[in-house]
Amino acid sequence: MKSAGVDCLLLTPGADMFYLTGFEHGHAMERLLALVLRADGSAQWIVPAMNVPQVEDFAQSGESVRGWTDADWYLPALKSAVGDAKTIAFDDDARSAFLLDLMAVAPHAKLRRASEVLQGLRLIKDHAELALLRKAGAQVDSVITAAVALCRAGRTESEIDEDLKALMLSADPASAIAFTIVASGPNSALPHHETAHRKLQQGDVIILDFGTRIGAPVETKHGPALSRAYGYQSDITVTCAVGEPADRDAKKVYDIVWQAQQAAIALVRPGVTCEQVDAAARKVIEAAGYGPQFLHRTGHGLGIQGHEPPFIRPGNSQVLEKGMVFSIEPGVYLAGRFGVRLEIIVAVGASTAELINKVSAQQMPHSE
Amino acid sequence: MKSAGVDCLLLTPGADMFYLTGFEHGHAMERLLALVLRADGSAQWIVPAMNVPQVEDFAQSGESVRGWTDADWYLPALKSAVGDAKTIAFDDDARSAFLLDLMAVAPHAKLRRASEVLQGLRLIKDHAELALLRKAGAQVDSVITAAVALCRAGRTESEIDEDLKALMLSADPASAIAFTIVASGPNSALPHHETAHRKLQQGDVIILDFGTRIGAPVETKHGPALSRAYGYQSDITVTCAVGEPADRDAKKVYDIVWQAQQAAIALVRPGVTCEQVDAAARKVIEAAGYGPQFLHRTGHGLGIQGHEPPFIRPGNSQVLEKGMVFSIEPGVYLAGRFGVRLEIIVAVGASTAELINKVSAQQMPHSE
Repeated sequence: MKSAGVDCLLLTPGADMFYLTGFEHGHAMERLLALVLRADGSAQWIVPAMNVPQVEDFAQSGESVRGWTDADWYLPALKSAVGDAKTIAFDDDARSAFLLDLMAVAPHAKLRRASEVLQGLRLIKDHAELALLRKAGAQVDSVITAAVALCRAGRTESEIDEDLKALMLSADPASAIAFTIVASGPNSALPHHETAHRKLQQGDVIILDFGTRIGAPVETKHGPALSRAYGYQSDITVTCAVGEPADRDAKKVYDIVWQAQQAAIALVRPGVTCEQVDAAARKVIEAAGYGPQFLHRTGHGLGIQGHEPPFIRPGNSQVLEKGMVFSIEPGVYLAGRFGVRLEIIVAVGASTAELINKVSAQQMPHSE
Repeated sequence: MKSAGVDCLLLTPGADMFYLTGFEHGHAMERLLALVLRADGSAQWIVPAMNVPQVEDFAQSGESVRGWTDADWYLPALKSAVGDAKTIAFDDDARSAFLLDLMAVAPHAKLRRASEVLQGLRLIKDHAELALLRKAGAQVDSVITAAVALCRAGRTESEIDEDLKALMLSADPASAIAFTIVASGPNSALPHHETAHRKLQQGDVIILDFGTRIGAPVETKHGPALSRAYGYQSDITVTCAVGEPADRDAKKVYDIVWQAQQAAIALVRPGVTCEQVDAAARKVIEAAGYGPQFLHRTGHGLGIQGHEPPFIRPGNSQVLEKGMVFSIEPGVYLAGRFGVRLEIIVAVGASTAELINKVSAQQMPHSE
């Protein structure tokens, strides 16, 4: 906080609060539950009265826990907690209504993003975090073959989605589903398609994008526990076909995307920039004439959140360091026809990329 | 917007955007996807390039859809969309990082809450909305008996939670789980306990708080569809015991909470204020000596969101109108021992409360 020039940091339940404290809570919603840290080392929790015992299980010695009631609401507690702070870093992911409340009770404070304080810490994964990310990665790797086999003609995207979730959970019942995308036929040309009721047809290209979350050890006053709503994630994308792909360009596009992915992976090492990694993939796709159909960045960081820094995109001059973890996921999307995306997660090692997932299949896999 | 004195309204994927447009999307995260409405009737969507076709399915004629790329990022599109707006109402539930972005590109705009514009619209449920809320309410009502029967000694909260979710889905496979809380024994003294691995014991008091969400009809350019991530919710709380409750005060406290709930329900009609309804329940509990153990407000609105206005709490002078829908859920929580909460949803009718759920059981139900 001192190096970021911030004298007050305010976090609500979410990834940053979980990272610092292990505390997670899913029912606060419009009630403000916040950890207010000061650069002098003091800390105060402001908490709905009904959640006080839950927060006390996680509060460190010396941290005060102030409950507020539904009758008083939280503005007085918030005002008192931020006091005369001059620069307040506010949780990036908190509800904007809470930020407007803060601006009302501390109208002269300069506002910053909490990520300015925490991003540097979360960006470099330590040994324990890498171990959890590898475990999550192995979990999705272990279901790839079975996931491809689910893609049979006549089944709907939603049916495959349900079976895919069951596969992931059976690989590790203690884990949770982070997300799934099942995009079939022309829907695969939408990078972030919302899984729907389309029936797969023979020859369809299918994009399966899926991830899990595994709990992380947390310390409570009652002893060690495993986190539930937050943890470390996996994220993989497989492109496959129902039998032989019907579109005659599908195999060619798959090969281009695969070459692009390999080019980006080959460049990953400390000292290279995010935009250089993006450019390595993009150059291959542009050379093949599909530049305008590569609709997104090459990758995003992965950790407690499914998308976090570093972002592997044009214009990002951030320099890679050992311990950063991110996706390499180039894609080509031909509107109305099909799309191909290949995603694996890599960690920056001492001099190369460590593959957190198996390498993507060099030829498009298919069911049936 | 004109009556709220707002010349620009900015919404991101969430309840308000869904209410106005039917559009929902779960993968935008750190990428800004926004609908920018102006008081002059013009509207623009600013959308990640990869989501443009998905938004075009919902955009009305005359609404422009501007895609932005990961290379350019969204700040130029945001700046151009808000233009010289003097007063901007911003989505209450959007990420605060987006609000800080807005403040950077429109530093002189006055900021307001989107709820100041939309709350009045969403607060009064029309016939179609009431029909969906009744359907969702009937769904949770239909599983109460089976849910109580799940609460057997030796089973963990998490096991009961899984079975409860399966019960709700079997009542209507097209619906989704909105949330569940299974709080057993001393955990039931935490109003918002996070379901965990405690094993139920004979004589435990159990709080089961659960809800579903049913899809709402939406119009797309391809025809009618059913919403997935948003819809209309149910929310009910049952307090029961594993056999006869072991704590000798459990039945007495249950009766007090039941009387409090009935007193509040009896008061519901147009013209009464939220704080009066809260006071009706609170008075019964205070008279019995448990005022300090009633740790929360009497209720919250229900609709597209699980918690929305009106809030039935002390200090809220909002006047009830026909068509408002909210919970009546007094509770008493004895730390380290047990808690009792009884919740049903009511709609404000022409002269009384319409019960959206069955009346809460007058005596504490029990398994075994």
